[in-house]
Amino acid sequence: MNRSREPYLLTPGPLTTSLATKSAMLRDWGSWDSDFNELTAGVCRRLLEVARAEETHVCVPLQGSGTYAVEAALATLLPWDGKTLVLMNGAYGQRMARILQYLGRDFETLDMGDYLPPPPERVEVILAADPEISHVAAVHCETSSGILNPLEAIAEVTWRQGRRLFVDAMSSFGALPIDARELPFDGLVSSANKCFEGVPGFGFALLRRKALEQCVGNAHSLSLDLYDQWTYLERSGQWRFTPPTHVVAAFASALEQHAAEGGAAGRLARYVHNETVLVAGMRAMGFHTLLADRWLSPIIVTFHAPGHPNFEFGRFYDLIKQHGFIIYPGKLTQVDSFRIGCIGQLFEEQMRGVLAAVRAALDELDIPDGAPRPEDLDKPEF
Amino acid sequence: MNRSREPYLLTPGPLTTSLATKSAMLRDWGSWDSDFNELTAGVCRRLLEVARAEETHVCVPLQGSGTYAVEAALATLLPWDGKTLVLMNGAYGQRMARILQYLGRDFETLDMGDYLPPPPERVEVILAADPEISHVAAVHCETSSGILNPLEAIAEVTWRQGRRLFVDAMSSFGALPIDARELPFDGLVSSANKCFEGVPGFGFALLRRKALEQCVGNAHSLSLDLYDQWTYLERSGQWRFTPPTHVVAAFASALEQHAAEGGAAGRLARYVHNETVLVAGMRAMGFHTLLADRWLSPIIVTFHAPGHPNFEFGRFYDLIKQHGFIIYPGKLTQVDSFRIGCIGQLFEEQMRGVLAAVRAALDELDIPDGAPRPEDLDKPEF
Ligand SMILES: Cc1ncc(COP(=O)(O)O)c(C=O)c1O
Ligand SMILES: Cc1ncc(COP(=O)(O)O)c(C=O)c1O
Repeated sequence: MNRSREPYLLTPGPLTTSLATKSAMLRDWGSWDSDFNELTAGVCRRLLEVARAEETHVCVPLQGSGTYAVEAALATLLPWDGKTLVLMNGAYGQRMARILQYLGRDFETLDMGDYLPPPPERVEVILAADPEISHVAAVHCETSSGILNPLEAIAEVTWRQGRRLFVDAMSSFGALPIDARELPFDGLVSSANKCFEGVPGFGFALLRRKALEQCVGNAHSLSLDLYDQWTYLERSGQWRFTPPTHVVAAFASALEQHAAEGGAAGRLARYVHNETVLVAGMRAMGFHTLLADRWLSPIIVTFHAPGHPNFEFGRFYDLIKQHGFIIYPGKLTQVDSFRIGCIGQLFEEQMRGVLAAVRAALDELDIPDGAPRPEDLDKPEF
Repeated sequence: MNRSREPYLLTPGPLTTSLATKSAMLRDWGSWDSDFNELTAGVCRRLLEVARAEETHVCVPLQGSGTYAVEAALATLLPWDGKTLVLMNGAYGQRMARILQYLGRDFETLDMGDYLPPPPERVEVILAADPEISHVAAVHCETSSGILNPLEAIAEVTWRQGRRLFVDAMSSFGALPIDARELPFDGLVSSANKCFEGVPGFGFALLRRKALEQCVGNAHSLSLDLYDQWTYLERSGQWRFTPPTHVVAAFASALEQHAAEGGAAGRLARYVHNETVLVAGMRAMGFHTLLADRWLSPIIVTFHAPGHPNFEFGRFYDLIKQHGFIIYPGKLTQVDSFRIGCIGQLFEEQMRGVLAAVRAALDELDIPDGAPRPEDLDKPEF
C-alpha cells in the first residue's frame, strides 16, 4: 500500500506530471505583458519544430480542452460547402462526426466499429467514388481502444486522391513520430496534457498556413475561431481572450523536459518500455489485450475484463486505487474491458507497481487469473 | 524598486492570487475519479450559495476563458427564433453583439458609446416598442471602463416587461452583491479568475433550471453546449471533456479563502478600500478618473492619461513594471487612458506601492502631474 503520495494516473489524461511542471504554476503572469507573450511564442515555435512544420504550418493555441481544438480546427478549416469523410473506430472518431453535425457541415463516415482499423484501400475507394469529399478526418491513436491507426497510409491515399487531411493527434503527438514534411496534413490538433505531459487547460492546432489564409469567416463560433485567434496572435503576440497563464507556464516547462528527454523519440522509447512491461506482466497474469500486437500503442492498452463472476470494475478500480494507482474504465460498446495508460511521468517502477496492485486486487477478489470469457476474444487479426 | 518577487498584477485578470491558491495546483487529479467529482460538486454548490440561487438555478462550469462561458450561455439559452437586446457601453457589451452575429441570432443594440450607462427608462421604452425582443443582455461591471452599470434597475424593467435577463457578471460576481432571489436572471456568467481570485482556465454559468430544461438542441457548438454539459454532469458527476483539474483545485482553495474573508461582502470591503486609496492617491497627483464617482467600481478604475507631451504609455508601463507592478492599458476608442485594477490579492500596501511607482514614473519622465488635457474630460455626470 502506498497512500503516502497522491495516486499515479495510468489514464489517457489528465496525467501524472512532474513536480517541475506543476511548480511552474507557482507564479502569476500578466497576460498582456511581454514576458508572457514570449512564453506563448516559444511554446508555439517549439511545437512546430517537433512536427517539423516550421516552414509550412502555424501553431494556434486555444483555451479549453482538446475537444475544443478539434471542433475549432474543423470549423475553421472546412468551407461551408465542403464534405468530410470521417474515419471512425471509437469514441473520438464518433465525436468528430458529432461535431460536424453541430457545425452543419456535410460529412460521411467510414465506421469500423469499436476497434478495427480503417483500411486505407477502402478509404481510397470511397474517395475515388465521391469527388465531393474535400477532406478526410482521421484519429491517429484512437484512445478509446488504444489502437494506433495507419495514419501514414491514410495520408498517402488522401493525398493521392487530391483531398485534404485533418488529424486528431491528441494522444499521440509528442511521442509518436509526426513529420509534416512527409505527412501532408492541413490541420493536426493535440493538447497540453497528453504526450507533452503538461497539465490540462488548452489545446493547439498546427494548421497549414496556405490553407488557413483562406479560412476567414468559416468558423461558427467566436471563441472557437482559429482564424481570428491566429491573426490576433500574429498582430499582438497575445491570445484573444484570457489564457490559462499558469497552465501555459507549466507547458513551457514540460516542453523543456520533453526536449531534455530527447524529444518525441526519447519520450516514445520510455512509453514503449512502459507498454512492454505492462503487457508482458498482464499477460503473465492471464489477461488478454483487446488488440493484436501490431495494433497496440504505447499510449494506452485495453484489456478484456476477467471473465470470473467475482469481477466488478468498481471494486477492482477501488482496490487498485488503494495501492496508489488510478486506472481507466473501458469505452467499448461490445465487450467488457478496462484500460491502463503508459503516458505521463511513469517509469518501469510505476508499471511494476500497477502490476503488483492488479495482482493484489485479483487476490482480494478471489479471482485466480485475468482470463476473459472466451467469447469476448474477438480481435482485429489482419 | 522591488524586483525580488514577481510583479503584482493590477489588472482585470489574470490576477495576483494567493500562494495557497497556487499551491493547490501541486497535485495531479484523475478527472474520472470520485475525489475530483466531489471537488467539482463542491465548487458548483458554493457558487450557487454565493448568488443565493440554490433553489432556482444550476451551476454549469465550462472549460475555457470567460468569453467561452458568455458565448455558451447565450447559445444555450437563446431559442433560434428569439431576439436579444444587447446593452453596450464598452468592449464586453460589443463582444456579446459579436457573439450573436456568429450565432446567427437576431439582436438589437442600445449602444451608449465608451462609458455612458444604459438608462433603464430607455431600455423599458425599447422593450415596450418591440414585443419580439425575448431577452436582454447586460454587462454588470463593464471592465473596459470600470463602470458599474445599473443592473438592478435594468433587471426590474426587463422583468416588468416580461422579458428574460442575461448578465455578464465576469468581473463583479464574488464581490458585488448578486442575489438571485431579488435579481430575476435566467443566466449569469463569470469566471474563475476575477473576484473569486482563482487562476484562469474555466468559467461558469448560473442558469435558471426551468429555463435550461427547455434548451436542448439550442447550442451551435458541441464544446459550448451548456445543456449537454449540464445533463452529463448531473448524470455522471463529471465534466464532459477533460477539465483543467489543477485550475479547478486552485479554485476550490480560492473559494475557501473567499468564505474565510467573509464571502462577497468581506471581499467587497477590501476592494472598496483599495479603490478609495487608489483614487485618492491618483487624484492627489493630479490624475482624473474617467467616470464620476457614482459610476466608479471597486473592480478597476480608468484614468485619463496625463496631457503632458512626455507621456507615452509604453514607457510609463515599463517604469511602473520595474517597480514591481503591472497596470493595464486603456480600452477606450475616444480618449487616451489607462487602467489600474483593485481586485486580486491586493491590499492597502500594494495600492500605496503602485501609487509610489506612478509617482516615480512621472518623475522619471519629467512630468509634473497627472493632469489630462482639458478636452479629454467629458464624463457621464448625470
Ligand atoms: C484521440 C483523442 N481525441 C480527443 C480527445 C478529447 O480531449 P479532451 O478530453 O481534452 O477534450 C481525447 C482525450 O483523451 C483523445 O484521446
Ligand atoms: C465583463 C467581462 N466580460 C467578459 C470578459 C472576457 O473574459 P475572458 O478574457 O476570460 O474571455 C471579461 C474579461 O476581463 C470581462 O471583464
